[in-house]
Amino acid sequence: MTLSREHCLQLDTEDSLQTLREHFVLPAGEIYLDGNSLGARPVKALARAHEVVEQEWGNRLIRSWNEAGWWNLPVTVGDKIGQLLGAKPGEVILTDSIGVNLFKVLSAALGLRPERRVIVMEGSNFPTDNYIACGLVEQLGGAYEIKFVEEEQLAAAINEDVAVVCLTQVHYRTGRVLDMASITALTQAVGAISIWDLSHSAGALEVDLNGCNADFAVGCTYKYLNGGPGSPAFVFCAARHQGKALQPLTGWWGHAEPFAFEPDYRPAPDIRQMLCGTQSAISMAIAEVGVDIFLTTSMAAVQAKSRALTDLFIDLIDQRCSGLGFEVDSPRDATKRGSQVALSHEQGYAIMQALIARGVIGDFRAPHTLRFGFAPLYLRHTDVWDAVEILVQIMTDGAWQNASFEKRNAVT
Amino acid sequence: MTLSREHCLQLDTEDSLQTLREHFVLPAGEIYLDGNSLGARPVKALARAHEVVEQEWGNRLIRSWNEAGWWNLPVTVGDKIGQLLGAKPGEVILTDSIGVNLFKVLSAALGLRPERRVIVMEGSNFPTDNYIACGLVEQLGGAYEIKFVEEEQLAAAINEDVAVVCLTQVHYRTGRVLDMASITALTQAVGAISIWDLSHSAGALEVDLNGCNADFAVGCTYKYLNGGPGSPAFVFCAARHQGKALQPLTGWWGHAEPFAFEPDYRPAPDIRQMLCGTQSAISMAIAEVGVDIFLTTSMAAVQAKSRALTDLFIDLIDQRCSGLGFEVDSPRDATKRGSQVALSHEQGYAIMQALIARGVIGDFRAPHTLRFGFAPLYLRHTDVWDAVEILVQIMTDGAWQNASFEKRNAVT
Repeated sequence: MTLSREHCLQLDTEDSLQTLREHFVLPAGEIYLDGNSLGARPVKALARAHEVVEQEWGNRLIRSWNEAGWWNLPVTVGDKIGQLLGAKPGEVILTDSIGVNLFKVLSAALGLRPERRVIVMEGSNFPTDNYIACGLVEQLGGAYEIKFVEEEQLAAAINEDVAVVCLTQVHYRTGRVLDMASITALTQAVGAISIWDLSHSAGALEVDLNGCNADFAVGCTYKYLNGGPGSPAFVFCAARHQGKALQPLTGWWGHAEPFAFEPDYRPAPDIRQMLCGTQSAISMAIAEVGVDIFLTTSMAAVQAKSRALTDLFIDLIDQRCSGLGFEVDSPRDATKRGSQVALSHEQGYAIMQALIARGVIGDFRAPHTLRFGFAPLYLRHTDVWDAVEILVQIMTDGAWQNASFEKRNAVT
Repeated sequence: MTLSREHCLQLDTEDSLQTLREHFVLPAGEIYLDGNSLGARPVKALARAHEVVEQEWGNRLIRSWNEAGWWNLPVTVGDKIGQLLGAKPGEVILTDSIGVNLFKVLSAALGLRPERRVIVMEGSNFPTDNYIACGLVEQLGGAYEIKFVEEEQLAAAINEDVAVVCLTQVHYRTGRVLDMASITALTQAVGAISIWDLSHSAGALEVDLNGCNADFAVGCTYKYLNGGPGSPAFVFCAARHQGKALQPLTGWWGHAEPFAFEPDYRPAPDIRQMLCGTQSAISMAIAEVGVDIFLTTSMAAVQAKSRALTDLFIDLIDQRCSGLGFEVDSPRDATKRGSQVALSHEQGYAIMQALIARGVIGDFRAPHTLRFGFAPLYLRHTDVWDAVEILVQIMTDGAWQNASFEKRNAVT
């Protein structure tokens, strides 16, 4: 079928999530395809920021730690995030950054398998997870081996020497989805522990942590969950590991009784042990606004729309950009793809600059990858059409050839 | 001399910092003596929150990481904090929580003295620092000994077995100040490394990290620096240790070239190695507002006012509360005291509840400590007078005896 804008318009009117777009502020005249990097701003985030700064901090001051529920935000917002991920109440907590949290759960997981010495990770993963694992291994005296493999080598690498298999479900470049259920089963069949990084999954895919019997997970709230720039990350620790798998950043927020000021650290018997120190109430409160929007729909509906938008984009690239030098680097099977599509092009950088100049905001990863994220809550099928229309125009009128001079100034 | 409110009023008119109070919003009818726990809200924090949420996040989205300087906030705000602490540009960075940062610098410091196995800390310190050290030692296989001593035992404990001396400069309960210069000298004389926790110092005392030749420090921005509830903490790493003393939370923000996405972690050769993962731009931007106010004055002036306010409070307690059962637990020598005064009283909890009910906001630490913080930027001498006046009233009219019933609900 040859696609048309009218067809896309029709899909928008049939979209069960169409009204959710009203919960977001989007810059006029732009199509924002970078929600996989920084999510758009929920309308209510501004009022919430105002409330927490003016009323809770300014007027009630120290009392707001109790009155306004600041102290419990890691748990209350964590539980809401858990609802989106197939976790039970008390299994997810909002805190710190992904890197810090990965250090915690990797340490905790290794502690559950003290006799094993191998960690399996994906070599082409977003590097920070791999850096963190290397930093931890070095701190532990180098007695561990990290096997960096690619997807097709995973099954062979997961054997009875392995303590932990630590993987990112959705690949940051290509959007490829790993099968959480089967890999977790494979991992546990050899007695190893699974850790999932859900940075590009949370708020985009239907994730079922307990359905997959996952052990640990980490992820962020600033991408699809629309929690704000650099908003806090989260940790999932399966109920069965709580009180047993302990993390080493033993700050007072992870103590069983923080206000007892006991001389010795006594780990909280629950998810709070994954906390370390004092967290920003403002960041947590604003992050909650983004998460709340998801609670008005279902992740099945979000995932279905994600697949519809990314399928549409790939179809349009095929139909309208053939012969223009683009390759689709993402899986063409929507069930194996997150909410983003990667294209490669020899002149990728210049093309992305030209797109941004015309209001289509994606991002670029060297050497050749144009990355487009399709946040299901606020993007329309017509946005996808219009973005490709602009891409076609740029390739046709040669605008991208003039854009490359900006390269020296851009650090997106 | 018998003190009077008129005298306090006169001191206010002579106060060189008196106009700084205008930079803060304070609840009407209250005297806020808990700025040592959560600082008051700067007037401009609300407009800045509005700007970063609405304009930078909402309208410019991902571009603000560069355009609005979000990416560099850890360094730019860190440098401003450094100015208040006697650090050089590039020696302080804003990031994470105190606990996470202490884990980093303690690890880095131990790495500088691999042949030594003893850490010296103060047993009565705010417990989180001690918890963190214990967590780290356990993570390192328990091959270290932590000697918890009190101030008078420090000199004897600091010997050539010691790798690190890790102390909080201002005691969280009593406000007692340790002599950073002499203890650092003592530490370095035996070849050990010094770490200072400046949580109750930054924004209250004149600190001279380089004048004392300090090695590392950590601290928070949510107390006297008025950065907001749970705002990010900071790390000081002396220039001479940068590139050599490495911390183990090796996330991408601490990489020499974060956007090169190299497979291996290559530590930033500068203060950025103390970073781990993505930080909240909103929290950092709001924290900067609080720090900026300090740049309009000098820490010598701030410290002088701190001493004047706390001296005044102690004098008033002596003159007006004698025989009422209070003991002053803070040093009476102002040069040995931070910007807080601790009183103990058998009925401390009930008295603090009664004070709070009448608008004097301090806090309580079990079993008997009433803690009063005197933030020099926004408190007046007349506030000190009025707070003691209310305390006298409460003790005289017996209001505190009715306040204790609230105990079960209060978790300050």
